[in-house]
Amino acid sequence: MEYKDRRELPIGVFDSGVGGLTVVREIMRQIPNEKIVYFGDTARVPYGSKSKDTVTRYSRQIVRFLQTQQVKAIVVACNTASAYALDELEKEIDIPIIGVVKPGAKVATEATRNGRIGVIGTAGTVGSGIYTTYIQQIRPEVEVIGKACPLFVPLVEEGLWQDPVTDEIAMRYLSELIDIGIDTLILGCTHYPLIRSTVGKIMGEHVTLVNPAYETARELKELLMEQELFNPMPPSLGTNKYRFFVSDGAQRFMQFANSIIKYGILSAKVINIEEY
Amino acid sequence: MEYKDRRELPIGVFDSGVGGLTVVREIMRQIPNEKIVYFGDTARVPYGSKSKDTVTRYSRQIVRFLQTQQVKAIVVACNTASAYALDELEKEIDIPIIGVVKPGAKVATEATRNGRIGVIGTAGTVGSGIYTTYIQQIRPEVEVIGKACPLFVPLVEEGLWQDPVTDEIAMRYLSELIDIGIDTLILGCTHYPLIRSTVGKIMGEHVTLVNPAYETARELKELLMEQELFNPMPPSLGTNKYRFFVSDGAQRFMQFANSIIKYGILSAKVINIEEY
Repeated sequence: MEYKDRRELPIGVFDSGVGGLTVVREIMRQIPNEKIVYFGDTARVPYGSKSKDTVTRYSRQIVRFLQTQQVKAIVVACNTASAYALDELEKEIDIPIIGVVKPGAKVATEATRNGRIGVIGTAGTVGSGIYTTYIQQIRPEVEVIGKACPLFVPLVEEGLWQDPVTDEIAMRYLSELIDIGIDTLILGCTHYPLIRSTVGKIMGEHVTLVNPAYETARELKELLMEQELFNPMPPSLGTNKYRFFVSDGAQRFMQFANSIIKYGILSAKVINIEEY
Repeated sequence: MEYKDRRELPIGVFDSGVGGLTVVREIMRQIPNEKIVYFGDTARVPYGSKSKDTVTRYSRQIVRFLQTQQVKAIVVACNTASAYALDELEKEIDIPIIGVVKPGAKVATEATRNGRIGVIGTAGTVGSGIYTTYIQQIRPEVEVIGKACPLFVPLVEEGLWQDPVTDEIAMRYLSELIDIGIDTLILGCTHYPLIRSTVGKIMGEHVTLVNPAYETARELKELLMEQELFNPMPPSLGTNKYRFFVSDGAQRFMQFANSIIKYGILSAKVINIEEY
């Protein structure tokens, strides 16, 4: 493939598995002219319980793969990878790369009135303290309370988006944050928007839920505008606008993907990511 | 290290993560003279939702690693890897290798009175139909009913071994098997012995629970005897009898390991398994 115009190149988006599709969904909605190449590391999912070194090594391989697909920018659509690997990756490549953490942190900082923000995510994301770092860079007096919720991802992947068991587990994870009196809660894992209604019900109306997926798509749009990479025209008919790659289980991936993205994902290709 | 006597070499045991420690525990109990080298693929866990190709590739790397540790025999202490990869691995190496599926299948076949056996496990193990194959090789008329239980592993790893949530999820997974009237249930995932009491309570006293970890240690002992590999003497004092390797998160591994094995796991070493 050759492109006369860099603006026509696709955006690369990656995640440890299927969660990043909530970010893809937002990009599709907010900047519909953009082509997307998605990679989900379904062979090595989940990242949330893995170490910084491992997540960084995996992310580096994925970035190398995405570069073979001639992407014009990369979105790290995984909170754990954004927390652990983004700083390293930024140094190593010459195209723009953004994560989901900074946009989410920024909006939460603007949203809080009482200065108490909760962050829910994987053990990796919460343990890294990265949301706290970003938030306190903007407003040092803000208190950030993190809570790891390791069962949310398996519950979402089992399809229990609205279920008494998910309610019960969510109650246990969130009660601490309710007691502390946070007024803003960051959904710090790309799976969590799918159980947004459960979380919202438990936290109550007075708590603002921040969805980094939404904020990331907004920031991506601004970035593309600034760097003159924004695609002004829809891709020509017959172009394969959205392409999906995974490291394992294409069938299972597509099933889940089609429950998140209503555009219809026709195919996903398995690649051996360890070769990159 | 040099050994004058092959019988003094360690047993290699591997699993996708921590579950295989229930097999290690049985080996420690039943053949306490044996040294063990354990590898848990904590960087790429879980295997249960991955494809045959991926699980086989990962297992092959681990076997190569274990061979660098001069093991005299290998135990595949993971149902998914036993289901998908054992046949391949057997062809490729010249030391004895056994999995957990065959010993479990054999005992279940002996135990059933009404000819209806249930198997619970990961999507991979259950989908492979391997328990059915082995059982029907012995008794073709036996009916085998498989049920994938994807949430059991995360619930166990979250420490909810005895918890109303685990009860509720177990009720949902197992009700089908109760309705069918099985009289024998294979705990077809190495994590499941840890929620044996929950499963037993729901299935009732008249259902025999088969723990392949126990049966595998028995079969290993017989195999070592037959092949004159059984270590007749305890290792000399000061020998590092049990050694643990993981592909990620040694600290987290040790915490969990020490909740399963009462011998006290003093250390675990992280290696990069992708290099093997």
